[in-house]
Amino acid sequence: MRYKDLTKIIPDTERLIPGDRIEGKYLSDALGRSRGVASALLFPLTSEEVRLIAAYANERAIPITARSGGTNLTGSTVPHGGLVIDFSRMNRILEIDRETLTATVEPGVVLADFQGLLEAQGLFYPPDPGEKTSTIGGNIATNAGGMRAVKYGVTRDYVRALEIVTADGKILWLGGKTVKDASGLSLKNLIIGSEGTLALITKIVLKLIPLPAKTIAAVAAFPNLDRAAAGVNRIIMSASGPTSVEFLEREVVKLGERFSGLSFPLDKHEAFIIASFDGGDDDEILQRVSLIEQAVRSAGAEDFAVLEDTQAQADMWRIRGCLVKAVEAVSEQEPMDIVVPINKISDFIAYTHELEAESGIRMVSFGHAGDGNIHLCIIRGDREQNLWEEALDRVMTKLYRKTADLGGLVSGEHGIGIAKRSYYLANAAPESIALMRAVKSAFDPNNILNPGKSYS
Amino acid sequence: MRYKDLTKIIPDTERLIPGDRIEGKYLSDALGRSRGVASALLFPLTSEEVRLIAAYANERAIPITARSGGTNLTGSTVPHGGLVIDFSRMNRILEIDRETLTATVEPGVVLADFQGLLEAQGLFYPPDPGEKTSTIGGNIATNAGGMRAVKYGVTRDYVRALEIVTADGKILWLGGKTVKDASGLSLKNLIIGSEGTLALITKIVLKLIPLPAKTIAAVAAFPNLDRAAAGVNRIIMSASGPTSVEFLEREVVKLGERFSGLSFPLDKHEAFIIASFDGGDDDEILQRVSLIEQAVRSAGAEDFAVLEDTQAQADMWRIRGCLVKAVEAVSEQEPMDIVVPINKISDFIAYTHELEAESGIRMVSFGHAGDGNIHLCIIRGDREQNLWEEALDRVMTKLYRKTADLGGLVSGEHGIGIAKRSYYLANAAPESIALMRAVKSAFDPNNILNPGKSYS
Repeated sequence: MRYKDLTKIIPDTERLIPGDRIEGKYLSDALGRSRGVASALLFPLTSEEVRLIAAYANERAIPITARSGGTNLTGSTVPHGGLVIDFSRMNRILEIDRETLTATVEPGVVLADFQGLLEAQGLFYPPDPGEKTSTIGGNIATNAGGMRAVKYGVTRDYVRALEIVTADGKILWLGGKTVKDASGLSLKNLIIGSEGTLALITKIVLKLIPLPAKTIAAVAAFPNLDRAAAGVNRIIMSASGPTSVEFLEREVVKLGERFSGLSFPLDKHEAFIIASFDGGDDDEILQRVSLIEQAVRSAGAEDFAVLEDTQAQADMWRIRGCLVKAVEAVSEQEPMDIVVPINKISDFIAYTHELEAESGIRMVSFGHAGDGNIHLCIIRGDREQNLWEEALDRVMTKLYRKTADLGGLVSGEHGIGIAKRSYYLANAAPESIALMRAVKSAFDPNNILNPGKSYS
Repeated sequence: MRYKDLTKIIPDTERLIPGDRIEGKYLSDALGRSRGVASALLFPLTSEEVRLIAAYANERAIPITARSGGTNLTGSTVPHGGLVIDFSRMNRILEIDRETLTATVEPGVVLADFQGLLEAQGLFYPPDPGEKTSTIGGNIATNAGGMRAVKYGVTRDYVRALEIVTADGKILWLGGKTVKDASGLSLKNLIIGSEGTLALITKIVLKLIPLPAKTIAAVAAFPNLDRAAAGVNRIIMSASGPTSVEFLEREVVKLGERFSGLSFPLDKHEAFIIASFDGGDDDEILQRVSLIEQAVRSAGAEDFAVLEDTQAQADMWRIRGCLVKAVEAVSEQEPMDIVVPINKISDFIAYTHELEAESGIRMVSFGHAGDGNIHLCIIRGDREQNLWEEALDRVMTKLYRKTADLGGLVSGEHGIGIAKRSYYLANAAPESIALMRAVKSAFDPNNILNPGKSYS
């Protein structure tokens, strides 16, 4: 590669950074533990620039790692040489179309900015991953989920169309502003969640919905997690239509309270379900909240509180929202986001308690109960590097094996990247990995797009 | 191919039919106009039998056409030689799991049977394509949509996992009983809607939801279709949460009334929107119905009726449901199911009226207004075969071109098959078709799975 060639594509020196001057954050992910190398960092402004970069790299078999927010936790933005394309300057909201209820955006648009702008106009983009500084492009690359998936689904459910640049430098639209699509293979759905391994995403058409007028939250307290897990099933089976259903254990709530300086609405119980509801008016929502109260009481809830006050709701969600940071304030941690069938949550949590006792390694879990998506933080404590790595590998191997035994999957929303790659490959059917690699070759014959990540 | 080899896989003569004894319906689709040829028809009972058939066929590059209900309208089950695998005897409901709200079924399960069984247990599988004798396997092969997609989405949104047999005879599970999945490429989503070109589907895990307790319908009458189309947008933007939003023109309603012998609730208007609502109780639903009334009145609706009575609702939906058959009772027709952005419905319908005047060919349209998915029946009348084929090709070419100009797609829910293949290929980006074909080669290097259908 001749650096000079790149200057013809990106003439602005501020948007083309040579390898030896790339800041560390552009060579890593949000955890910053693994740092890669690259020969250049590029900030394109247009699909055409991206197309030229891809065509150039493809001809010379130079790897490309795409990134924008860099908030991923799995190392999927850690480059193994080649070019880093940072999409954060392709961050325009190109259209908000009220007639078709769609928005057309560039991949670098920050989720929180986008959602704020929409909500001011009475519109709503429901996907709600924890990290609000993530970008739409990254959300699509990992099929980001979040708290509101119980009612509203995940990122995949809101992608109407994608403009992509292929590995060999072609610009293509997949899908359209239409709601339904039964026309040919759904390449769009294949690219969603592909972690930058199949194509570069340069424009996105997203589905929007009207903003619900009201939100109410509720907390149910249980004597133990088993009861809480039974409560989750009863909630899902009730006709209460919750927006989110999260579970927390007492110990985790304490961590969150300490970190945030806020008080959780209920106390003196071992396990909690917190849920939110949205809709057109208070009475209608409160009626559904009463259904959930019946549901959790019948599962053994000992206490139940309804939060109508906006501030009280915000405080409770802040405690829930700060948990990863609350854990990290105590110690370095390894984040897992396994997903199991919703009736296996308590089996999985019980297993983490067993494994804690057996290994002496502390584990903190919480998560999206309505989806079976469990965030498990494995706590390093004061272990020294070598011992930690060994111990971590040992428990993660067991945890992912248990996940598979329970009919679960390695990742519910973070993706695989490099951090979970070996565990993912160990638990996936080799035939299925072989098919994925064959599909990658069809998209990217020279294997330039984020090679060595996830299945690839 | 030696027929004797097949008898080793399927020893039961009732389940292995030689080419010269295959009934016509197994060589065609629901329209029955195009008839293919095959050297054998097989009715496997297990995934293992399917695996053996695929492995055998793959080694000899013998084409396989999968079918079960045979209700498709696009010729996608018309074989071009080789083997026809009919899945209709793999029709067991293997599990209904209330704890995870999933059902595991074989592909030959008939939609109506499945939905009936679930509803008796207070459970609901929302996808609602018009043809209730279609099977779950076929629904997945075309990503079937239907009336309830506005609220509940399409078949894709309910597929948690698939067991597939690959072209080279491997049995693989994709996905799981889990709600979320960010683990590797979503091959499952690629197979949904692939019309039998990538893999054979042998088991399916479907998402279920609790059955809504109540349903209410409403009809709004407008002076013209433009007003009705404006009403659709207002409905979607209201917080009324309709289950379905359909549009009908007066002339079509008359056809349906005549065919069904039933009366449509409103009369003397040019265009109608019919909508349904479901939920936990009447008051809550009626509150939402009042929102929709405001919405349509503000768009110029001249009349509005609410149907609470179950029989009155059923009668109205029977009129809507019989429309294709009502048209066919009058004349042979060619069914289109184009999809446009929802704000382009009236532009498209206006164009069909222009084209009717210009070509002298009658066209009847109705459809899923909330999705922009328009069913257009092009009426043959008494045209003789050659003239009809020429005229049909001329108007279809124009209609699909118009669809593309409006930002739409060739098929919303029927799929492409052979009937729409040339129009689909003419309107798709060649690079996107090339990618699809490369993906097919990755799955099916010998091109044995339903070759020559859709993009392939």
